[in-house]
Amino acid sequence: MTSFSHLKSVIHLNELAEDPYDLTLDINLQPKRIDSMLSEALGLKLFYGTERVSDITLQALFDLAEETKVLDKMHKMQSGEVMNRIEGCESEERKVLHTAMRDFFEQTNEAPVAKEASQLAYQELEKLVEFLRDLEKNDNFTDMVQVGIGGSDLGPRAIYLALKAYEKPNRRAHFFSNVDPDDGFSVLKDLDLSKTLFVVVSKSGSTLETRTNEELVRFYLQKAGLDPKNHLIAVTGKGSPMDDPSRYLASFYIWDYIGGRYSVTSMVGCVILAFSLGMDRVLSFLRGASSMDKLALKPQMKGNLPLLSALLSVWNRNFLGCSTSAVIPYSQALSRFPAHLQQLNMESNGKRIDKRGHDLDFDSGPVIWGEPGTNGQHSFFQLIHQGTSVVPVEFLGFCQSQYKEDVLYQGTYCQEKLLSNLFAQSLALATGQKSSNPNKVFPGNRPSRVLLGSRLDPYTLGQILSYYENSVAFQGFLWNINSFDQEGVQLGKVLASQCIDLFAQQRAKKTVDVKSFPLGYAYVKHVIKEEFQ
Amino acid sequence: MTSFSHLKSVIHLNELAEDPYDLTLDINLQPKRIDSMLSEALGLKLFYGTERVSDITLQALFDLAEETKVLDKMHKMQSGEVMNRIEGCESEERKVLHTAMRDFFEQTNEAPVAKEASQLAYQELEKLVEFLRDLEKNDNFTDMVQVGIGGSDLGPRAIYLALKAYEKPNRRAHFFSNVDPDDGFSVLKDLDLSKTLFVVVSKSGSTLETRTNEELVRFYLQKAGLDPKNHLIAVTGKGSPMDDPSRYLASFYIWDYIGGRYSVTSMVGCVILAFSLGMDRVLSFLRGASSMDKLALKPQMKGNLPLLSALLSVWNRNFLGCSTSAVIPYSQALSRFPAHLQQLNMESNGKRIDKRGHDLDFDSGPVIWGEPGTNGQHSFFQLIHQGTSVVPVEFLGFCQSQYKEDVLYQGTYCQEKLLSNLFAQSLALATGQKSSNPNKVFPGNRPSRVLLGSRLDPYTLGQILSYYENSVAFQGFLWNINSFDQEGVQLGKVLASQCIDLFAQQRAKKTVDVKSFPLGYAYVKHVIKEEFQ
Repeated sequence: MTSFSHLKSVIHLNELAEDPYDLTLDINLQPKRIDSMLSEALGLKLFYGTERVSDITLQALFDLAEETKVLDKMHKMQSGEVMNRIEGCESEERKVLHTAMRDFFEQTNEAPVAKEASQLAYQELEKLVEFLRDLEKNDNFTDMVQVGIGGSDLGPRAIYLALKAYEKPNRRAHFFSNVDPDDGFSVLKDLDLSKTLFVVVSKSGSTLETRTNEELVRFYLQKAGLDPKNHLIAVTGKGSPMDDPSRYLASFYIWDYIGGRYSVTSMVGCVILAFSLGMDRVLSFLRGASSMDKLALKPQMKGNLPLLSALLSVWNRNFLGCSTSAVIPYSQALSRFPAHLQQLNMESNGKRIDKRGHDLDFDSGPVIWGEPGTNGQHSFFQLIHQGTSVVPVEFLGFCQSQYKEDVLYQGTYCQEKLLSNLFAQSLALATGQKSSNPNKVFPGNRPSRVLLGSRLDPYTLGQILSYYENSVAFQGFLWNINSFDQEGVQLGKVLASQCIDLFAQQRAKKTVDVKSFPLGYAYVKHVIKEEFQ
Repeated sequence: MTSFSHLKSVIHLNELAEDPYDLTLDINLQPKRIDSMLSEALGLKLFYGTERVSDITLQALFDLAEETKVLDKMHKMQSGEVMNRIEGCESEERKVLHTAMRDFFEQTNEAPVAKEASQLAYQELEKLVEFLRDLEKNDNFTDMVQVGIGGSDLGPRAIYLALKAYEKPNRRAHFFSNVDPDDGFSVLKDLDLSKTLFVVVSKSGSTLETRTNEELVRFYLQKAGLDPKNHLIAVTGKGSPMDDPSRYLASFYIWDYIGGRYSVTSMVGCVILAFSLGMDRVLSFLRGASSMDKLALKPQMKGNLPLLSALLSVWNRNFLGCSTSAVIPYSQALSRFPAHLQQLNMESNGKRIDKRGHDLDFDSGPVIWGEPGTNGQHSFFQLIHQGTSVVPVEFLGFCQSQYKEDVLYQGTYCQEKLLSNLFAQSLALATGQKSSNPNKVFPGNRPSRVLLGSRLDPYTLGQILSYYENSVAFQGFLWNINSFDQEGVQLGKVLASQCIDLFAQQRAKKTVDVKSFPLGYAYVKHVIKEEFQ
């Protein structure tokens, strides 16, 4: 397979990038462009008239998708082929089947491997239904705390906060993740532990932070005279050190083909979401995600929203040279959603080799970051409008609010003011502004797109989650990189355990073998000095 | 004055950047480098041995500071000269005196302008003390809600969360900011309004979001049979539309020389912090900030932590070409601190002209982003270690935890594991790793620095806040840009009000004058279609 930089379509796109579409010309950015550069599917509208693309650019991007066979790869992924691998060197060699975690509705995948994964996932859902039913009957639990980190924390937390408006009465969810002892204690200190369940989530069953925090929880439960076994639920892989029913009230399984950052719709997310929001909401959420998975297989590229979005991102990254991209939801409920997308995207596509083990000679995934609007407008938008770096923006918005509690002030509702700001930002970034005062000059030509939904409900959020999951996978397919491993986290783990060992030596023997890790000791000694005096 | 690109020191630094210090060579990164590239002041330690600088680079950076007279500019700023201006064109023409908001302790500034600002600030503090004393005597308020946006929200919120461990019993703080109606309602719905005070913060008294949210608050107070006048506090500029004692229980002033993003230590932050944490903690916090302001004036550049940090940031940005920078606090309490720094830095230095109104021919402020560690390690660190873009990292850590509730697990405490991870990341980024498996190769030479404190208490947090405020100002001084205005937010405001007008027309007249803003209508019509059916 030809490497990305030498593809025919890439060479063509490089030519087009020498003179990208100029959005600052009135004649170029007209209402009819906004109208025609709009893709609608499943109730979502993706406006991309404010991206720096012409019809010719779009066609060249579609050619890129053809040339790299990304739809074929998406089909293979959803059908359970081994997509998590690097040719010719030791790698994870795993299937990638998060889409099977929600493939229970329409046009289910017929590939035996995917079917089996989906059946196993459904069994866990049924176990969960039963578990929650028993809970309602016999117990009095009001609070659930998720103890996990990375994908076991960011996704479920973001989704819970996004759907808090749908929370069941007398049910609350909490999260802690960090090995920082203040994180755990600040959550635990305000809870009635007798009414609290803890979901401990670790696929390997050996995540340092999570196992340490589990100890913290067991310690405080025992201190409160409670039996940890009646309060802890395990979500883990079969055969892991945590797969031990004698220590947990219940256990739910995940599999090696579910990457942490893709695990929200598995038991990693479903247990706490079903407890706090109810199973009907979780099923809506899964149904929404699955509907978008099916859309991701559609060969009509303009209507395939995750693919279209992936192509626009690659255009901005590789051809317009933008090294970061912002996600700005005009919805306070999505306040932690950018943090989830940050992991999803950067851990998947922050890679330096392709799937054949060759060093990349082009840029892979950008830095993803963001905060809700309108707040961001009063913060970092100054740089997005007038800084020296161009930051493409993905806006998210919804026609209606969640609570539908709104006030009319100066002739409009808050929700209308909110959306007005979203639309205005997208246009201001594109058009810019001329002025004789150099400080009032806005260069414009700063790309953005707008994803507009009707309302942020469980179904729509499932769609949006899957839209991003599949868009990230498509970008990896376009670049021919492995979006499903994370070797880059290993070195830090090794050095951390060497530092921990220095502290452990000091605790156990009152002295440290400096030579075991001299560089680490250059830092650790400053803490030891303070702590062990 | 010579422009940045043509400075003698810049030309020298460009030469040095052709072959920056190689941290991947064992011989280059030794414990003695960590020891010697450590600046200690006021109880804080700044380790910068893992930045790509040699002693020669450092000297060249100090030459840059000399050549641009940044210490002189810092002195002028703190003394109340008009620093917020662009020569030769209409600009804000304001003093920049946030440091005066806390200059009550040692070596107070003797310049009459600064002295007067400081006296005015002290009067407000005294008013606040009295107000809170009366509150304790007569009332039963348990909750305070800050209603503000941008600088009136991010800073106070970040500081409150950081110091929640020091919260007074029976006192809680809340924040809402977004014009999204779900933001306000989700906060209000769980409060006992009869026991709640609202601080409405807007310097101009005309911030759209804040005034709209004030209406929302007044509406719900009245609905609950309460008189808004007894529950609302104003923090605003003298003579603003909000400077109306007949509508507020109390009013506190801020001045045009306090930029929103620099306003945490003014009444913008102090009211809610004093209510929730107590005045003694607020005074500690201000004392810490002031101590760092004084350090920022010190001519010994190595010991001037904010200046040293600014120079390292400029090295990474302009000479090593890094377009983003991450701030990673190894402290969950600082979870929202990066969002505050994001505004502080990006709104200050995301500029495209210098102070003479000339277009920059070099890069100004980078994109600033971050999340707490160790969480980030399980999320975006993959890209930082193995992505194609280099992201310099500023680590923050503390020897001790806040609550001192910790468990010993496998021979060490959580706090020790936390710090071990911080140190390990800094080293792993620097050294990298060779391997025959291309996926296990870490290129290394990824710069970082570590700021280590003893404990995250009010005094230390004040220092850290001021460290960043002054570091951001120093970077602006080095580049000769105006770090104190934000013209880049204006265009969006204008277009947003045009969109709002389209909605208002539809509400009032059931029809819209499309020609008033055709581009805006291309979006707005999709919402109108859904909403007005």
